Amino acid sequence: MGRIVQKFGGTSVANVECIKNAANKVLIEHNKGNQVIVVVSAMAGTTNQLINYIEQITDLYDPKEYDVIVSAGEQWNAGLMALALQNLGLNARSWLGWQIAIQTDQVHSKARILGVEIDAIEAALVNTEIVVVPGFQGVSNNRITTLGRGGSDLTAVALAGALNADRCDIFTDVDGIYTADPRLVSKAQKLGKITYEEMLEMASLGSKVLQTRSVELAMNYGVNLQVRSSFDDKPGTIVVSEEEIVEQQVVSGISQSKEESKITLLKIADKPGIAASIFGPLADASINVDMIVQNISEDGNTTDLTFTVSTTDLKNALEVLETRANNIGVGQIIADSNVVKISVVGIGMRSHAGIAQKMFMALADKGINIKVISTSEIKVSVLVAEEYGELAVRALHSAYGLDSN
Amino acid sequence: MGRIVQKFGGTSVANVECIKNAANKVLIEHNKGNQVIVVVSAMAGTTNQLINYIEQITDLYDPKEYDVIVSAGEQWNAGLMALALQNLGLNARSWLGWQIAIQTDQVHSKARILGVEIDAIEAALVNTEIVVVPGFQGVSNNRITTLGRGGSDLTAVALAGALNADRCDIFTDVDGIYTADPRLVSKAQKLGKITYEEMLEMASLGSKVLQTRSVELAMNYGVNLQVRSSFDDKPGTIVVSEEEIVEQQVVSGISQSKEESKITLLKIADKPGIAASIFGPLADASINVDMIVQNISEDGNTTDLTFTVSTTDLKNALEVLETRANNIGVGQIIADSNVVKISVVGIGMRSHAGIAQKMFMALADKGINIKVISTSEIKVSVLVAEEYGELAVRALHSAYGLDSN
Repeated sequence: MGRIVQKFGGTSVANVECIKNAANKVLIEHNKGNQVIVVVSAMAGTTNQLINYIEQITDLYDPKEYDVIVSAGEQWNAGLMALALQNLGLNARSWLGWQIAIQTDQVHSKARILGVEIDAIEAALVNTEIVVVPGFQGVSNNRITTLGRGGSDLTAVALAGALNADRCDIFTDVDGIYTADPRLVSKAQKLGKITYEEMLEMASLGSKVLQTRSVELAMNYGVNLQVRSSFDDKPGTIVVSEEEIVEQQVVSGISQSKEESKITLLKIADKPGIAASIFGPLADASINVDMIVQNISEDGNTTDLTFTVSTTDLKNALEVLETRANNIGVGQIIADSNVVKISVVGIGMRSHAGIAQKMFMALADKGINIKVISTSEIKVSVLVAEEYGELAVRALHSAYGLDSN
Repeated sequence: MGRIVQKFGGTSVANVECIKNAANKVLIEHNKGNQVIVVVSAMAGTTNQLINYIEQITDLYDPKEYDVIVSAGEQWNAGLMALALQNLGLNARSWLGWQIAIQTDQVHSKARILGVEIDAIEAALVNTEIVVVPGFQGVSNNRITTLGRGGSDLTAVALAGALNADRCDIFTDVDGIYTADPRLVSKAQKLGKITYEEMLEMASLGSKVLQTRSVELAMNYGVNLQVRSSFDDKPGTIVVSEEEIVEQQVVSGISQSKEESKITLLKIADKPGIAASIFGPLADASINVDMIVQNISEDGNTTDLTFTVSTTDLKNALEVLETRANNIGVGQIIADSNVVKISVVGIGMRSHAGIAQKMFMALADKGINIKVISTSEIKVSVLVAEEYGELAVRALHSAYGLDSN
């Protein structure tokens, strides 16, 4: 007998028919003799509708009340899922965040899970009850909290960790993790397994199947995550620790992110503390900086600094920099949102030389100019002009031998 | 300084504009120096939408999960109201049923309130906080319960009682209680005051402004209820105890209910226990019987029995009676749903003779045949053919001198 967490995302529970379909997947696991914990998102569109109501009232909303409002969508879907399961003859019961309780910190609208009180749901599971939990919500100081973007995945992973589940299945509208976005690369292949570290890089690079926080939490708890489709019964992609992948691919996938913009500061003073004087104010404004490249100084006095920010933060970032321009001593600020970040990710990269070189060659062959380069232990990222993005992904997918036959 | 409960019904909080409008009414009371408790319904239509989802899954739903689902609509509206109040500069906070807690029995989907834990909200009120409470919901045994139809009014009245409020304003889409339905009787007048007892009769007779349970609860707690419009600032109708009405009207209003059907059992045995053998099975099937008339026996052996049931229960009632027909010894069962119940209600009736006689005369003058008569201490009801209903209401409204000039 196993213990399985099944999490159904917004498109998997978008209406009553979808909920019934999802309930059948729970029945299958139950009939295998498994204990099942079901985590549900709100119906696709519900959360946006509720946020729209909030925005009609105020832009500067109180996050405590925001949480009361937006948690309602998952609440009613948990009830509907419990009814759909009962309708299949199962003994099912919904458990809201405050009922379990899923304790979080008090940072409303983006709370972090501090702990899960498992006694009551353990007893329910042992009693062959299906435990249905609304994702995205917890409780702190007797008030509802929500976990921020991707919060339902977090709920699923946290429950899987706390309950020592054998597997945590994330049902979504894609059937797994691919070597590249199948919409761009027709020869992309579904990966059977991927490591947490690779998945983390993929997530942070714009592959939106799983949020970074969920992958981190799964890695910390050692939860076997599976990403799979809610619209068929095929196995998906399992995210596991490195040891569980016997034959490591050098490169697991090519990912692309269009949501980055490049900022270049020309002729800044080349002296200690200059980086802090630039990135400090950006951090204060909650702007995340990604790739940072500083060239060596040519004249010994000034240098150029290039970095990327999320395109949604670009306007804000430029405002911050312009108000500080005199203090910092910047000659000129150049912004470019017409760029795309292409990354090659693979855990096997650590033990293989020449990965980056193969990337540069493949791009040069296609006449694609590289604007910025940045590397980590298991990835190489480059920034290229947006119009070359898809060509670059396809070229690299072939170059690393990832194309299907 | 007073303490006021303001309850906004579904049409009063049907969208964000309505919620902002309602919030302004709260601000007015706050600015008078009053402590304010706000009770909100779900947006008009929301609860029906949620019930529709449930019905797409199953007809025989688990009321525990029903409560989790349908309570969501009031929950998010409470959050939106708190935000709208904050946006007006008020210190407002939502309190869900389980947070307060509003303790109920365990009869999910139609729970009764057992008690309200007031310490935390008392402290909030003293601290000039506006306390926003979703109507219709409570908690029992760590699970959400709902209070059934008209539940938000019940929440408002229970809070007003528990918190010793000076007044409980029910904001709705009508501006008060009238001497008759203004859509039928153009000369109907708004009542300034009405007694609990009269309001109870009006409510049970189909005037849908307030549910019977809320009026009963208000009477038990001695809560001053005011029914008023959410779309203007005029005073509405205050429901008070008899002592507070100095000059009692003999008749306060004429009400009409089309939702009744008449059942006549011909030639039943005239012997002890026969009524119990008929109404027992109906009660077992949860069918409420309203007017009951039994004529004296002509031949000493058989008699005829007429009673009314809600038209929605008619089919069910006839099934129950037909399966029992042999046991009971019924000659024939006649059903008639083409009837309307007209009632004359007034607390002053107790001390005035001839009220019923005036009714019979007024109806006879218009050539309206009376099918059934039933009386209580403060009302006289008759059943007439449906096509005469509106004529009867108008005739009686004039006969009792209720027409406006």
